[in-house]
Amino acid sequence: MKRQTAKHLHRKIFTFWILCWSICLIALTTSAVAASDPLPSWNDGPTKQAIIEFVKAVTDKSSPRYVAPQDRTATFDNDGTMWVSHPVYTEFVFALDRLRALAPKHPEWQTEMPFKKVLSGGIKAMAELSDEEWGHIYGATHSDMTIATFLKIAREWLATAKHPRYHQLYTDLIYLPMLEAMRYLRANGFTTYIVTGGGQEFVRAYAKRFYGVPPEQVVGSSLDTKYEYRDGQPSLWRLPRVFFIDDHSGKAIGINLFIGKRPHIAFGNSSGDREMLEWTTGGEGARLGLLVLHDDPKREYAYGPAGGLPDTTVGTFPPSLMDEAKKRHWVIISMKKDWKKIFDWE
Amino acid sequence: MKRQTAKHLHRKIFTFWILCWSICLIALTTSAVAASDPLPSWNDGPTKQAIIEFVKAVTDKSSPRYVAPQDRTATFDNDGTMWVSHPVYTEFVFALDRLRALAPKHPEWQTEMPFKKVLSGGIKAMAELSDEEWGHIYGATHSDMTIATFLKIAREWLATAKHPRYHQLYTDLIYLPMLEAMRYLRANGFTTYIVTGGGQEFVRAYAKRFYGVPPEQVVGSSLDTKYEYRDGQPSLWRLPRVFFIDDHSGKAIGINLFIGKRPHIAFGNSSGDREMLEWTTGGEGARLGLLVLHDDPKREYAYGPAGGLPDTTVGTFPPSLMDEAKKRHWVIISMKKDWKKIFDWE
Repeated sequence: MKRQTAKHLHRKIFTFWILCWSICLIALTTSAVAASDPLPSWNDGPTKQAIIEFVKAVTDKSSPRYVAPQDRTATFDNDGTMWVSHPVYTEFVFALDRLRALAPKHPEWQTEMPFKKVLSGGIKAMAELSDEEWGHIYGATHSDMTIATFLKIAREWLATAKHPRYHQLYTDLIYLPMLEAMRYLRANGFTTYIVTGGGQEFVRAYAKRFYGVPPEQVVGSSLDTKYEYRDGQPSLWRLPRVFFIDDHSGKAIGINLFIGKRPHIAFGNSSGDREMLEWTTGGEGARLGLLVLHDDPKREYAYGPAGGLPDTTVGTFPPSLMDEAKKRHWVIISMKKDWKKIFDWE
Repeated sequence: MKRQTAKHLHRKIFTFWILCWSICLIALTTSAVAASDPLPSWNDGPTKQAIIEFVKAVTDKSSPRYVAPQDRTATFDNDGTMWVSHPVYTEFVFALDRLRALAPKHPEWQTEMPFKKVLSGGIKAMAELSDEEWGHIYGATHSDMTIATFLKIAREWLATAKHPRYHQLYTDLIYLPMLEAMRYLRANGFTTYIVTGGGQEFVRAYAKRFYGVPPEQVVGSSLDTKYEYRDGQPSLWRLPRVFFIDDHSGKAIGINLFIGKRPHIAFGNSSGDREMLEWTTGGEGARLGLLVLHDDPKREYAYGPAGGLPDTTVGTFPPSLMDEAKKRHWVIISMKKDWKKIFDWE
């Protein structure tokens, strides 16, 4: 009886032992696969393959497409490429909140355009602003303070404001697959730049913490700045005048101005990124252009109107851009098909 | 007799042996001292000490003046700080040579100002140009071509043009002590930027090779650029219109625009660097401002007029700047006293 119990116990311990080892082995195998996959949030397929093959060629010294580490430059558009930009650009929501906060001190805005229509129409009115109107709103909400104060205000807003659909912080609406692509490129010697039509300082307010991109690697639109002494201290004061618009051809110009190197890989999502991709892929050797297509109404949004998607005033992807993409062999990233997971919290 | 000869020979060999060892020992000691001295071309004294103490404090984790590596930013003016700028800025000589080369195609320059006076007056006339006149010369000699073509022309010129006094290439007139300071800072985790009133692309043409400073770390003055297709290829075309002047307050503004970080150490030599040093040393924690004083007429030039030196239109160091330097504890680098060696070929 005693012997049998002992035998039974031994068998139980042995079974438990085997089970433990099996679990360990499965866990090890899974993590090894994950470690060998630099883009785990991307579905396997030609898009993911194109990125991996590009990186392999660029880093392989025996490849004719090899690029020296100091020349490995990657540029990323921000709105709609790195994070959600619908129903309207995040910075537009920030401007609207600032406008509402400043309105009591500006009774003239109740009758003056475009302030009047934005204060009454909210986000919907913001999405329909012309470039000139946005310039007025931008000047009124982003200037008349030091750079340091602006960064503080932007950071405070980003730490609390939430997206109307997802009810998440805007920095929680950064696309995980794009973060993975950025980190993968950096791990392979690339310097990764944000090249945004949005405000350079607005993106600088969060880029280091959330993208791992330091201030000197954020290229964007900017206001005129005035250097002056205030309270005995030198200060940089933001003026309500546009200095540089880093959009459309401004992106190619801005890349040369700030970086002075032609990118080898560029990511965008709309007609504002056309010239950046042209400039990138027009260079010799290994070059890759990619465009995110917002075709996932369930998990994110669907707009275009390339591929029959509804048109938009916020980050349009017209059929002509799709035609050019095909002609120049740019890679289309389908959110729906190529991204296994869109957000980290999913 | 034989024994004596042998003894004599032994003594000779022994003496030779001792001599060899002594030479070896001296060589070893000298190289050990050199290796432990990060600034061998600087004379020992308070200036060299200030730089070394600053670097020690910034890199010492236990120091209250410690700065994290990603924030270690150093900015260097170019003309008169990194290389010779007398009798006139190098880029002015380049512009003059370009003007002379282009003159046959521009008969109108024979009567039109300021072209007429520069073509007849040469370097002396260049040194006396007003900012507006220089703008005209700059536009006529630096534009109407792609960025790539400009870089090629600048590099070709720098490879052959020689300084009228030294009869050396301009890149051989880079100050060795400043190169040492730059390398010393980089070896201690600093990112080193050129912040120049001169043309950004002109400095980019040689900065990587001669300073070890890549294009994205050259902040300078720039022309408007146009993005367009030429011969079926996207190109960046330089227009004869000034876009940004990176001088005086423009240096503080340019530092924020391009770098987005406040420098911890800045080197300059003239009134055009005043605001850069104010902005740098106005920050909290470890900050150091330094100004090169050209007080060595024998090895280089003597101009100021701080300290009773003759005045100049090329890189002036007025008494008011010296007063401010004293008030703000900026360090004055005396070429005569602080630099053991000025040029590598000396």
